[in-house]
Amino acid sequence: MALVKKPVTGMKDILPAEMQIRDYVMNVIKENYRKFGFTPIETPCVEHIENLCSKQGGENEKLIFKIMKRGEKFNLANASSEMDLADGGLRYDLTLPLSRYYANNAANLPSPFKALQIGSVWRADRPQKGRFRQFVQCDIDILGEPTNLAEIELILATTTTLGKLGFKGFKVRINERRILKAMAAYSGFDEAQFDLVFIILDKMDKIGIEGVSEELVANGFTKEATERYLALFTGMQEAKDPVAYLADKLGDYLESGVTESLSEIMDSVRGTVDTDFEIVFDPTLVRGMSYYTGTIFEIEMAEFGSSVAGGGRYDEMIGKFTGQKTPACGFSIGFERIVTILLDQGFVVPGSQKKIAYLVEKGMPSDRLCEVIKEAQQERAAGNQVLVVRMNKNKKFQKEQLEKDGYEEFKDFYKEALKY
Amino acid sequence: MALVKKPVTGMKDILPAEMQIRDYVMNVIKENYRKFGFTPIETPCVEHIENLCSKQGGENEKLIFKIMKRGEKFNLANASSEMDLADGGLRYDLTLPLSRYYANNAANLPSPFKALQIGSVWRADRPQKGRFRQFVQCDIDILGEPTNLAEIELILATTTTLGKLGFKGFKVRINERRILKAMAAYSGFDEAQFDLVFIILDKMDKIGIEGVSEELVANGFTKEATERYLALFTGMQEAKDPVAYLADKLGDYLESGVTESLSEIMDSVRGTVDTDFEIVFDPTLVRGMSYYTGTIFEIEMAEFGSSVAGGGRYDEMIGKFTGQKTPACGFSIGFERIVTILLDQGFVVPGSQKKIAYLVEKGMPSDRLCEVIKEAQQERAAGNQVLVVRMNKNKKFQKEQLEKDGYEEFKDFYKEALKY
Repeated sequence: MALVKKPVTGMKDILPAEMQIRDYVMNVIKENYRKFGFTPIETPCVEHIENLCSKQGGENEKLIFKIMKRGEKFNLANASSEMDLADGGLRYDLTLPLSRYYANNAANLPSPFKALQIGSVWRADRPQKGRFRQFVQCDIDILGEPTNLAEIELILATTTTLGKLGFKGFKVRINERRILKAMAAYSGFDEAQFDLVFIILDKMDKIGIEGVSEELVANGFTKEATERYLALFTGMQEAKDPVAYLADKLGDYLESGVTESLSEIMDSVRGTVDTDFEIVFDPTLVRGMSYYTGTIFEIEMAEFGSSVAGGGRYDEMIGKFTGQKTPACGFSIGFERIVTILLDQGFVVPGSQKKIAYLVEKGMPSDRLCEVIKEAQQERAAGNQVLVVRMNKNKKFQKEQLEKDGYEEFKDFYKEALKY
Repeated sequence: MALVKKPVTGMKDILPAEMQIRDYVMNVIKENYRKFGFTPIETPCVEHIENLCSKQGGENEKLIFKIMKRGEKFNLANASSEMDLADGGLRYDLTLPLSRYYANNAANLPSPFKALQIGSVWRADRPQKGRFRQFVQCDIDILGEPTNLAEIELILATTTTLGKLGFKGFKVRINERRILKAMAAYSGFDEAQFDLVFIILDKMDKIGIEGVSEELVANGFTKEATERYLALFTGMQEAKDPVAYLADKLGDYLESGVTESLSEIMDSVRGTVDTDFEIVFDPTLVRGMSYYTGTIFEIEMAEFGSSVAGGGRYDEMIGKFTGQKTPACGFSIGFERIVTILLDQGFVVPGSQKKIAYLVEKGMPSDRLCEVIKEAQQERAAGNQVLVVRMNKNKKFQKEQLEKDGYEEFKDFYKEALKY
């Protein structure tokens, strides 16, 4: 049977040019996040199937690559569904494994714990352009910090890092799951229906306030609730301070302190920023993951339609492992999107190594080859990149190809030293 | 259902202290290999099940984590074995995916192509101390280079890198599959039995020449062939130049040029080395993988019983994908073993960032918090690592914990600026 040359459906081979940008972006991210006190950690790519299918991941749970049981545990005769045959799966995000990790290792970790995790995740999504089934996520999380210092540090670290990568003029949108819920409750929607309301609200930027109104009614919500709901949005648009307006309107529907904390996050970020971006309250921001419990945020770039980073507070997830509530908040950079933008922009990685190619004629005697390699080793020790290759018959073409790969200096070595 | 806190069997959560060493080792490896002109690439962790089960991987093929088909393709009713239900698997090494990658992308890659691949691989081995089911490999390969320049560059790059990591006094053992075969043929063993002969020969360092002799005879090989075989080994021990001795003895059993090339590799490495190690011909070196066709090598360290790096020439594998023979040679560093040795030695990662912790009293007003964060941002811009945390009630204990994490400077910020 002939072997298959293409990678598996939806996953990709990464060629040297893209790899160079990926390595660069990864290094900038790591270096900057470290300055904010985030500590790199790693979790296995394979996770317990029970954890992956525990309703934490919303729609992503439908996209899991499941891993088969092995040996005697694989019992085909008695299996009635795929779940009987699987004991693991590839992680669909880094947040669930991080929560398990923290639950497992909290005794050996500082509190609060600031984690940096960069790694691949897998989702068996329908393959489409620019969307892959294996992709890298880059998450920072602060575990054990109940106050909004977590949100402030996460937003500062992420925006500073994006600034170091050359991005500017982007927008941080921020909202609160508790505000979303209070607005829906105030309007008279049934709590069981909140998620549907939010799914429709999420389309605001595409279909406008009119469209949202029509769709809510079409889904059987009362005209009264719909009008009361949308009046809040028009009211905010007209208000000088939309957060204060909401606080006033929602009154007891909202826990005390929620709007104040949100304002404090925005003020602190605005007051300390050295990157060119804006942070705005966006009451239409929803975010899909069911695990969020408080603040939620996203970063939008004009260069790229959808968001390039997103996150929020998920105070309930770690408790699912430990039985003990642990505050948690995270921010994830869409690594693949950042790389795509830079590739599209023709970004050139700043390099310091000189690239030199040594062309060695075929049939060179051992002692002479030794000399050549010795010279190469000295150049390398001096910090340069030296490629030692056999000289092709068409030396001119060979050098042209090497120039395309960035080699800027060439040295020819012939088997007879005299020709050198 | 309660969620599972422990990682899946045989895989591990990596804690910050180990992670720091891993990141350091990875950076040293990348930086050095780049100087030798190796280009980083990446292949998907998931590989076609047909490729993984194509008899390239020897024993490793029994240890594959298989991935289930999804959707309609998963047909439990008609399945008669696990292979009917799997369409992918986690890669068990980086060499097979590299060969597929090269077959798929050769038109867009330089020739020869010097690849650097660092990534996780998975084997469902029986869990045991220090051995994990997910582990990192770190491979360099030269594809499209038929001459021993590939071997020389691979050995120099790997030994130089180990030297940069502080290792010295290690031993490179080198052999040739064609010499192994010629010795067996010369002795009169049947070619179909060569692999069994090599498995027994591989035990020489444990059971000695007597033991090998007994085991060969016990496995039904003739006394005559066994004696003729082992006489070669005692002959080499007594010879001044074992390679020349063999060349003379084996005569036509060996392709011409094989021993000369082996000597040239050793001479070139010895002549250009700036790291303290030795390279020796070891006719008992076998290496398990069935895909090797020529030179094979391993690195041994006194600090660690078994080998810490290994590789060789595999000129046939890429042809399995393309139908066209492509010379290939690679060297793989056992990343996990290197990390284990450094951890055991109490290795301290050289660091340049100063680690400072800002302790912020609870209840600090927004404007004052802004000032604190602004100061932190300035320190970070100056290259330092700054952690901003809420001050605990037991500040002394909090600082002791932070000291354990490497924080060397502290600054307390109180909600009333006067106290500052």
